Amino acid sequence: MVTRKGLQALLSPQSFALIGASDKSTFSSLVVANLRGAGRGDDVHLVNPRSPEVHGQATVARCRDIAGGVDLAFVMVPARLAPDALRDATEAGASAAIVLSSGYAEAGEEGRQRQAELVALAESLGITMLGPNVLGVVNVLDGIPAMALSDPPQRPGRVALISQSGASCGAMKDFAELAGVELSHVLTVGNEAMVTIAHLVDFLVDDDRVGAIAIFMEAVKEPQLFAAAARRAAAAGKPIVVLKAGRSELAARAAASHTGALVGDDRVVDAVFSALGVVRVDTIEDMLVTAGLGAYAGPIEGGLGVVSISGGACDIIADLAESAAVEIPEFTPQTQERLRARLPDFGHAHNPLDITGAAITDPPLWGAAIEAVAADPAVGVVLAVNSLPWREDGRPFYGQPYVDQIGRALAEAPVPGLYVTQVGQPFGPQARDILAQAGVPHQVAGLRAAVDAVARIRDWSQRLDAAVREPVWPPPDTQERAGGAALSEADARALLQRHGVPVVPAAFASTADEAVAAAAQFGSGPLVVKIVSPDIAHKTDVGGVRLHVAPHDVGEVAGQMMHDVAAAVPQARIDGVLVGPQRDPATELLVGVTRDPDWGLLLAVGLGGVLVEMLDDVAIAPLPVDETGVRRLLSQLRGARLLGGVRGRPAADLDAVVSVVAAIATTAAALGPRLEALEVNPLRVDGANVEALDALVVLREEKS
Amino acid sequence: MVTRKGLQALLSPQSFALIGASDKSTFSSLVVANLRGAGRGDDVHLVNPRSPEVHGQATVARCRDIAGGVDLAFVMVPARLAPDALRDATEAGASAAIVLSSGYAEAGEEGRQRQAELVALAESLGITMLGPNVLGVVNVLDGIPAMALSDPPQRPGRVALISQSGASCGAMKDFAELAGVELSHVLTVGNEAMVTIAHLVDFLVDDDRVGAIAIFMEAVKEPQLFAAAARRAAAAGKPIVVLKAGRSELAARAAASHTGALVGDDRVVDAVFSALGVVRVDTIEDMLVTAGLGAYAGPIEGGLGVVSISGGACDIIADLAESAAVEIPEFTPQTQERLRARLPDFGHAHNPLDITGAAITDPPLWGAAIEAVAADPAVGVVLAVNSLPWREDGRPFYGQPYVDQIGRALAEAPVPGLYVTQVGQPFGPQARDILAQAGVPHQVAGLRAAVDAVARIRDWSQRLDAAVREPVWPPPDTQERAGGAALSEADARALLQRHGVPVVPAAFASTADEAVAAAAQFGSGPLVVKIVSPDIAHKTDVGGVRLHVAPHDVGEVAGQMMHDVAAAVPQARIDGVLVGPQRDPATELLVGVTRDPDWGLLLAVGLGGVLVEMLDDVAIAPLPVDETGVRRLLSQLRGARLLGGVRGRPAADLDAVVSVVAAIATTAAALGPRLEALEVNPLRVDGANVEALDALVVLREEKS
Repeated sequence: MVTRKGLQALLSPQSFALIGASDKSTFSSLVVANLRGAGRGDDVHLVNPRSPEVHGQATVARCRDIAGGVDLAFVMVPARLAPDALRDATEAGASAAIVLSSGYAEAGEEGRQRQAELVALAESLGITMLGPNVLGVVNVLDGIPAMALSDPPQRPGRVALISQSGASCGAMKDFAELAGVELSHVLTVGNEAMVTIAHLVDFLVDDDRVGAIAIFMEAVKEPQLFAAAARRAAAAGKPIVVLKAGRSELAARAAASHTGALVGDDRVVDAVFSALGVVRVDTIEDMLVTAGLGAYAGPIEGGLGVVSISGGACDIIADLAESAAVEIPEFTPQTQERLRARLPDFGHAHNPLDITGAAITDPPLWGAAIEAVAADPAVGVVLAVNSLPWREDGRPFYGQPYVDQIGRALAEAPVPGLYVTQVGQPFGPQARDILAQAGVPHQVAGLRAAVDAVARIRDWSQRLDAAVREPVWPPPDTQERAGGAALSEADARALLQRHGVPVVPAAFASTADEAVAAAAQFGSGPLVVKIVSPDIAHKTDVGGVRLHVAPHDVGEVAGQMMHDVAAAVPQARIDGVLVGPQRDPATELLVGVTRDPDWGLLLAVGLGGVLVEMLDDVAIAPLPVDETGVRRLLSQLRGARLLGGVRGRPAADLDAVVSVVAAIATTAAALGPRLEALEVNPLRVDGANVEALDALVVLREEKS
Repeated sequence: MVTRKGLQALLSPQSFALIGASDKSTFSSLVVANLRGAGRGDDVHLVNPRSPEVHGQATVARCRDIAGGVDLAFVMVPARLAPDALRDATEAGASAAIVLSSGYAEAGEEGRQRQAELVALAESLGITMLGPNVLGVVNVLDGIPAMALSDPPQRPGRVALISQSGASCGAMKDFAELAGVELSHVLTVGNEAMVTIAHLVDFLVDDDRVGAIAIFMEAVKEPQLFAAAARRAAAAGKPIVVLKAGRSELAARAAASHTGALVGDDRVVDAVFSALGVVRVDTIEDMLVTAGLGAYAGPIEGGLGVVSISGGACDIIADLAESAAVEIPEFTPQTQERLRARLPDFGHAHNPLDITGAAITDPPLWGAAIEAVAADPAVGVVLAVNSLPWREDGRPFYGQPYVDQIGRALAEAPVPGLYVTQVGQPFGPQARDILAQAGVPHQVAGLRAAVDAVARIRDWSQRLDAAVREPVWPPPDTQERAGGAALSEADARALLQRHGVPVVPAAFASTADEAVAAAAQFGSGPLVVKIVSPDIAHKTDVGGVRLHVAPHDVGEVAGQMMHDVAAAVPQARIDGVLVGPQRDPATELLVGVTRDPDWGLLLAVGLGGVLVEMLDDVAIAPLPVDETGVRRLLSQLRGARLLGGVRGRPAADLDAVVSVVAAIATTAAALGPRLEALEVNPLRVDGANVEALDALVVLREEKS
C-alpha cells in the first residue's frame, strides 16, 4: 500500500541510511558525495558490518544502531540480503526505502519471484519501497539529492522529471541543464515493484511548486491511478509530457527484453493520453523543452506571433509551424498599422515579422515590435528569434542592448513570451547571465524545438477542457469472466434501438411463408435476408446472408438458407430469418467498442469499406464518449473529407452522425462490465439518413 | 557570363580591395579583421577618397592607385556609387567583386532596375559579381575569410555551406561548429544577380576537398545548371543537402516579401530534388548534421546497427528509426552468437543492442560489441551511443577508456561508424579532444539528429543510381509559345495508341445512323457515347458524354447529343460522336503530364476517383521517366495498396500498369516542346487489363 505519507518520507527524508555502503561501489560513492554536497552529510549514516570506515566515515553494523533512527534507507546489498536490510531499516524507524539492488524482474522468472517476495515483505513491514533496480530520487526543491547520479541539478525549477530508465537519466538531467529547463525533481522508478510512476504523478500534481511533469516510461502501470492523476493535472493546467517508448514493434520488443514490460497497443496509449490531456513526444529533448514551456506558460490561447531579425528564420518557422499544425495568424489591421509606423519603409508588417537589419542600429525596434505583436488579439504566444553566445570563452557580448529590449518586452507581454535562438545550442553560464540581466522570462534553443513545443502545448491547451469535463471512465472490470457469447442479431438490433440508434428495418420470420408475408411491408425494391441464430456470430461465413433478393424470390431464399445453414452448422439453433430492405450504396462508417485490459472499454470509429482497409484509418477513445468527443474522433479521421460529400455524394449531416455514434457509445457504456465487444458495421450515412445495417454484441459471463 | 575562372577569382583571391572601407561600418571592420586574422592583412587595400586612414591603415583614393592591382573588390559604397566602384576595380585588374551594398531587387521595382543595370555593367566589364546585398565568402580550405561574419570558421572540413540568407549565416556557421561539422566554405549569395547558388554548386562539386554541399535557399535560380551539377554530385557520391523554404504557403509568401523570390510549387521541387538525388531537410540543424554525415560516410549500403549502454536509448532509437523509415535489421545468427559469447547472461543479443551496465567495469565490451555489429552483413552503419562532457568547466573526464574502445572499433569498422550522444549537446573543446584522442571518426549529438541524418543519407544512397542513370531531361523550351489547342479525342486516342498505350475501343460516327451501325460491333452491353469536336476540351460540361447507353438507344442518344451540343456551343465544329463499350467499375489511375516553367515536362500519377480528391495522393517526376521510375512513383502513393487488390477486387498486374504508364510518358516526351499538357483520366486497371478510357492532349503553338 503506497500512501501519501510514505511518498512524503521517500521524497523529503531528513536522515539517510546507506545499507551496504562501500568504497568500491560507484553508486555508494555518488549518493554520499551528493548528500554531503547538499549539506546533508551529518544526516547520512553508513551501514556496513564488515568495514568500520567507508567514504572516510565510521560505519554502523545495523540501522538499529543509529541513534535517533533514520527516515530513508538506501539498500545497496546483493538481492539475497535485501529482505534483512528492509527489516533492519524498518526497525530503525525508516518509513521509506530505495532498493538499488538488481537481480529482480529484469533478470527473468527467478528474479520476478524474488521481487514479489520483496514487495510482500515491504507491504507487511509498512515501508514504502522504490525500486528495486533503481538509482534513487533528487528533490531539487528541498535540496535532497538522494540518488546515484553525477552532478545532480541544484537550481530548483518547476519541471518534475520521472524516468523509468536509470541509465538515460543522466542524459536527461544534462539536457535539462543545457536547455535551461530547471527541475523540481529527478525521480527514477526502476522496476516499479511498489511505487509506480502513477503514484509519483499522483503525489506531485498537487505540489504548487511543480508546474509540469516530464516522464520517460516504457509501460503505464496502475493505469487507473495514472488516469485520475492526469485528470487532476489537466484541471490544474499542468501538462504531463510523456516520452513513452514502444510506438514501433521493435521498440516494444526491446522494452520487453530489458524490463519485462508489456508495452500494449500503441494506438490505445495514444487515444487514452489524448483523452487525458497527456502530451506525447518522441525524444528526450522534446520532452524537456515541452515540459519547460508548459511549466512556464500554462495553457496557450491563440496562435504564434514571431519577431525576428532574419527573413530566413521567418521562412523556416512558417514551414515548421505548418508541419506542426500551429497557426501563425495574420496581424489585425491595427497591429499592422502600429508596426508600419515603426518599421523601415522596405519592411513588411506581416506575421512572421522580419524587423530587418534596421534593428541593428535601433535596438528599441525590438521592444516596440514585440509589444505590438504581443498585443494582437489572435496571438497567444510570442517568439523573439535572436542569437546568444555559447562558447564560454570569456569574450565580451555586444548584443546585450538587443536582449534587454527583448527581455523587457517579453516579460511585460500579456501572453507568454519566448526568447528563441535560431539553432539548437546550450544555454551556458554566459547565456544565462545575459538572459537573467535582461529579465527574459523563458528561452528555447532552436526553431524546430520552439515551434514543436508551442504546437504541443497549444494542442494540449485545446484538449484541456475535454480532459477535465469528460466523465471519468469506469475502472476495468476486475472480476474474472469467461469468453463471451454473441447476442442474436435481433436482440442486438433491439438493444441498439432502445438506446436510440436507428437500425435498418427488418422483420423476423421463422418460416419461408412468414418471410414472404414479412417482405410485403418493404415494397417492390430488393431485399436482404439473414439467418437468425444465437450460435452464429459470422453469418456471412456460413451462407447466412443474401443481398439483392428480389421480393418474389424471398420465400425460396429464406427456406433454402435455413436449410443450408442448418446443414453447415448442425449444432446451431436456427430460429429463422430477418428480412429487410436492401439499401443503395452510400458512405459507410464502422463503429466498434472493444475492451482493453488496462483502460476498459474503447470506442473506435472509422470510415468503412476500402478506406479502413487501405489507410487503417480509425480513431479511438476510451468510453464514455459524448457528442463532443465523437465529433473530435470524426475530425481525426484522415478520410473525414468523405463525410463532407465528394464525387456527387451528398454531404453527411454531421449532427445526425454524431448523435447516432454517441448513442452507440451509450449502448456500450450501459452494458459496462458485461460487454466484451460491440460492432456496428456498417453504419450507413446518406445525408441525414444514418442507419445501422448490421450489429454484433458480445457479452462476457462471470466465471462460475 | 559566369566562368570557372571568374569563380576561381571570387573564391581564391590573393589580394583584396575594400571600396568604401570605413571605421563606422561593422561590415568593413569585420572583413578587415577576418582577413588580418587569417594572415592576409598585407594583401588588404582600403579604398576611401575621403579618409586618409581607416582601420588604422592608410587608404588609397581609388583601386587604380593600388600598386600591383587587386584580385577581388569588396563594394561597400551606397548603391548609386557601385557602378563606378566596379569600373574602378576592373581597371585595377579585379576579376571578381562582392557587392555588399543593398537597395536592389530586395527593395522594390526601382531597385530591380538598378540591379539589372549593375549586372549589365559587370557583364560588359567581364567581372564576376557576387551579390548585391551579400556578406561575402569564406574559403576555409585556403584560409580566406572574405566575409562580414563574426568568428569565421578556421578548422577546414569537407562540407561547403551556401546560404541565400546572410542574416542566418552566422547561426548556421555557429551550429556547424558546435555540432562538430567542419566546413570547407561559407558562401552567401544575396540577391544572386549574377553568381547564383547553381554556379557555386557547379564549381564546388568538382573540388575533391568538398565532400558534401549544404544549401539554404528560397528559390532555385538557373534550374538547368543546378540540375546538371546535382547529377555530377550524385555521380561523385557527394550529397547536396538543401533547406529550401516555402513548403507552406505562408513561407512562400514571406520569402516573396523579403527577397522577391518566386518559390514555385513545392511538390514540384520535391519531385525534382528526388529525381536528382538532392536531400531535402526542414531545419538548419538537420541540414548541417546530414551534410556532415554524408561528407564523412558517402553512400550507406545497409541498415542501422546500434550499440548502447542504455536500454532506454535502444527503445527511443527503435521508435525514431521506424518513423524515419530506416531499417534496424536483426543480427545474423553468427553475429548473435558472437555477441552472446561476450555479453553477460542477462543481456540480449538483438539490434538495437543494449550492452548493459556490464560495460562499466568492462570497457573492452564496447569494442567487442561494435566489432561484432559492424561485421554483420545487414548493417551498413554503426551508431555507438554514449555520453560526453559539454560543460567546459575544467573537470576531469573519467570515461576516456570507454571512448577509446568506441573510437578504435568505429575507426576500424568496415562500415561508417558514428559516436552518438544521447541528447543534443555541443561538441566543445573538451569533447573534441576526447574524441580526437580516441580516434572517433565521426560524431552526432542526439538520437533523433543521428537517426534522421542516417535515414536521409540512406535514402539518398538508394536514389543515387537512378539520379545518375536516368536520362537528363530536356531543358524547358525557351521559345515563346501561345496557349495551346486541344487535339480531338480521336486524334489523342490515335496518338496514344501509336505509342503502345491500350485505349478502350471506340468507333467514330458522323451521323446517328452510323452510330447505330458502329455500336453493333460492341455486343449487347451498355455503351458510352461522346461528342467529337476539335473545339471542345471539356465534353462533360456541355452534355457531350453519355454513359450506360443501351444499344437500342444509341441512335437517338447520338443524334440528340450532336444537336444539343451544337446548340450549346454554336461556334464549335461538331464532327460526330465516338461510340464504345461501357466498362465495369475497376481501380482507376490518373496519369497526367504538365509543363513547369523551370523544370519542363512533369509526369504525375495518382489513384483516381474519390481517393485523389480526398487524399491529394499524387506522385510527380520530371520527364523522361522509364519503367523503373514509374514503379518508384507508384510505390510512393499512399493508396498504393489499392493496386494490390482489396475488397475482392483483383490485384493489378503491376508490370502491365508500369508499362502502360511508361508508354504514356513516352508519348508526352516525344511531343517535347510542342506539348502543353496530356492527361489520361481514368486509366482503368482491372487485373492485367489496363486501358485508357479518356485522353486529353493540349499542344502549344509557336508565337507568330
